[in-house]
Amino acid sequence: MVIEYELQAECGGARAGLLRTPHGTFKTPMFMPVGTQATVKTLTPEELYDMGAQVILSNTYHLFLRPGEDLVREAGGLHRFMNWKRAVLTDSGGFQVFSLGRMRRITEEGVTFRSHIDGSEKFLSPEVSMTVQMALNADIAMTFDECIPYPSDYEYTRLSTERTSRWARRCLDSHRSDTQGLFGIVQGGMYKDLRKKSAADLVAMNFEGYGIGGLSVGESKDIMYDILDGTVPYLPREKARYLMGVGTPDCLIEGVARGIDMFDCVFPTRVARNGMAMTGTGRVNVRNAGYARDFGPLEESCGCYTCRNYTRAYIRHLFKAEELLAYRLVSIHNLYFLLNFMRRMRESVLNGTFAAFRENFWSRYRDS
Amino acid sequence: MVIEYELQAECGGARAGLLRTPHGTFKTPMFMPVGTQATVKTLTPEELYDMGAQVILSNTYHLFLRPGEDLVREAGGLHRFMNWKRAVLTDSGGFQVFSLGRMRRITEEGVTFRSHIDGSEKFLSPEVSMTVQMALNADIAMTFDECIPYPSDYEYTRLSTERTSRWARRCLDSHRSDTQGLFGIVQGGMYKDLRKKSAADLVAMNFEGYGIGGLSVGESKDIMYDILDGTVPYLPREKARYLMGVGTPDCLIEGVARGIDMFDCVFPTRVARNGMAMTGTGRVNVRNAGYARDFGPLEESCGCYTCRNYTRAYIRHLFKAEELLAYRLVSIHNLYFLLNFMRRMRESVLNGTFAAFRENFWSRYRDS
Repeated sequence: MVIEYELQAECGGARAGLLRTPHGTFKTPMFMPVGTQATVKTLTPEELYDMGAQVILSNTYHLFLRPGEDLVREAGGLHRFMNWKRAVLTDSGGFQVFSLGRMRRITEEGVTFRSHIDGSEKFLSPEVSMTVQMALNADIAMTFDECIPYPSDYEYTRLSTERTSRWARRCLDSHRSDTQGLFGIVQGGMYKDLRKKSAADLVAMNFEGYGIGGLSVGESKDIMYDILDGTVPYLPREKARYLMGVGTPDCLIEGVARGIDMFDCVFPTRVARNGMAMTGTGRVNVRNAGYARDFGPLEESCGCYTCRNYTRAYIRHLFKAEELLAYRLVSIHNLYFLLNFMRRMRESVLNGTFAAFRENFWSRYRDS
Repeated sequence: MVIEYELQAECGGARAGLLRTPHGTFKTPMFMPVGTQATVKTLTPEELYDMGAQVILSNTYHLFLRPGEDLVREAGGLHRFMNWKRAVLTDSGGFQVFSLGRMRRITEEGVTFRSHIDGSEKFLSPEVSMTVQMALNADIAMTFDECIPYPSDYEYTRLSTERTSRWARRCLDSHRSDTQGLFGIVQGGMYKDLRKKSAADLVAMNFEGYGIGGLSVGESKDIMYDILDGTVPYLPREKARYLMGVGTPDCLIEGVARGIDMFDCVFPTRVARNGMAMTGTGRVNVRNAGYARDFGPLEESCGCYTCRNYTRAYIRHLFKAEELLAYRLVSIHNLYFLLNFMRRMRESVLNGTFAAFRENFWSRYRDS
């Protein structure tokens, strides 16, 4: 096994653990900042280290199209290409390809689609995704799955989920690496029996960890939590569990409460570029006129670089003036906020106080 | 005097010195990065400290319009507003206002113009510029001058230069600060007798330093060097001399050779955002296809953060993918390049080897 998970403590359903990778051992539960195109938008690796980022996610779909996996291999792999010294996880390209809608065609063999960059025809399959991910050489690769649209009927979901299991097997058969682990992805849409079946199929293949895909795709949060309740129990305790594409504080805490160890989401960096700062009590849009003369930080008591050094008034000025530093400063704050939130959650699991942490969170948080 | 210049060494016409400001003592000759809107585009103060930036320039015109000098004063001045701990120089707004062309109207009293942001009518005069600059509270303010278009006939230039002298007197009379020095700006267009007269007028007013304005406005470099030859001798040895808006290596070295101590220019950061990297042998556009698989740094032997950590291939990828980190990385390189170039020039003046330094530069540099 290239990737190993060590369970350190449990508190209710929540877990604290360690994830061992070829680029170091990292603490879970964790949030992984997203570096879609081999860069976490606007930031340097050092800025991410400073805020405590451990594993980042990069996108196979995007790198496959540009600059191409061969170039990244020639550069010495994704770590060297982008100057990132900690761990990287690459998704499989499945989610992006299926998001293309009518621009793609699915067969048992794989998916034909048109590049969003130049319109050229491209093909991804379990084998191609493995070849690309091995070239990128992230610490963790993900199996190539179909991310089922929401809503989808039972029959479509059943057939797709079965194909995802067959594709997972093909990924396993074609993945060969001493420096990269492979996680399977559980699908099954919003049907608990299909989630259970998908989990059983994948666990039987003995992956090094398990992603839970196809959630946070438009369903209500209550449905998502319910599906998690119906999925996690079928995953092995001794492997890492990764809820894909989830990254708002409420979903992170409820995911951890249900035994999730890893998360990723573009949310904190995407909303940052619109001026939206995440705080423990909800979101704040620093572009609002009310902050023009607000000489306090984005969030009182926050220890991030931005909050230690800049005021809302200044950051608002940068947004009004369309200065790129604005995007950096709020991206730093939002990622620090989430990474720190995960650290505090982890501490509470280790201390046996997660239930109180969760209760306190819900007493303060306004969803916006 | 709030600002003091100490001449440490001369080598031919070139000088090495120290500039004492309320925010520290800095080494000349120096290049000042430009932070037009209270931010050096894409960069944090720490990145600028790391590369050895000493004094930065910010623009009165831009800050007057947005966010307004009252807000900056309330924030505690420009240093606190933008989190910059070393020295700042503000220009007077003159250059920007006169660049508006037909959107402005000049009288003896001042200049009426339309804001480029919302089209509203605004007014700047010597007194208003001083009021605004005192509110911004940079270490060094500049007098409000008319930057004469190129080409301009003798008569227009004479009348304008005389008005600039009258405006300089009004600036001096209305400037009151214990924390901010005031530099006069020599004009006179491309006429040496008017330059001499302008210098004499200003020197008689005993400013704390002298800017040379109205150069690098379209004339050939030979003309610029000739005008410098006809201006600098009329400035006092014991005050700093600042050639405004100049920042390519060839002009920097020729300016230093003629006794200039300070320079500023948006050039290094502006071209960086187009992918243009400055090097000791000329410019390189990292977006060129030829660099797609170039795994070397922007410039061999460069010690900047970018060159120590990133390849041309990666930076080219970032440009192709329109990732903002691209702009940061090349901005860091270009500013480091110029700051380091100035440091090496200063060393050569102190060592008495400036002539050899200049000769070696010209044997390698290709203007592009």
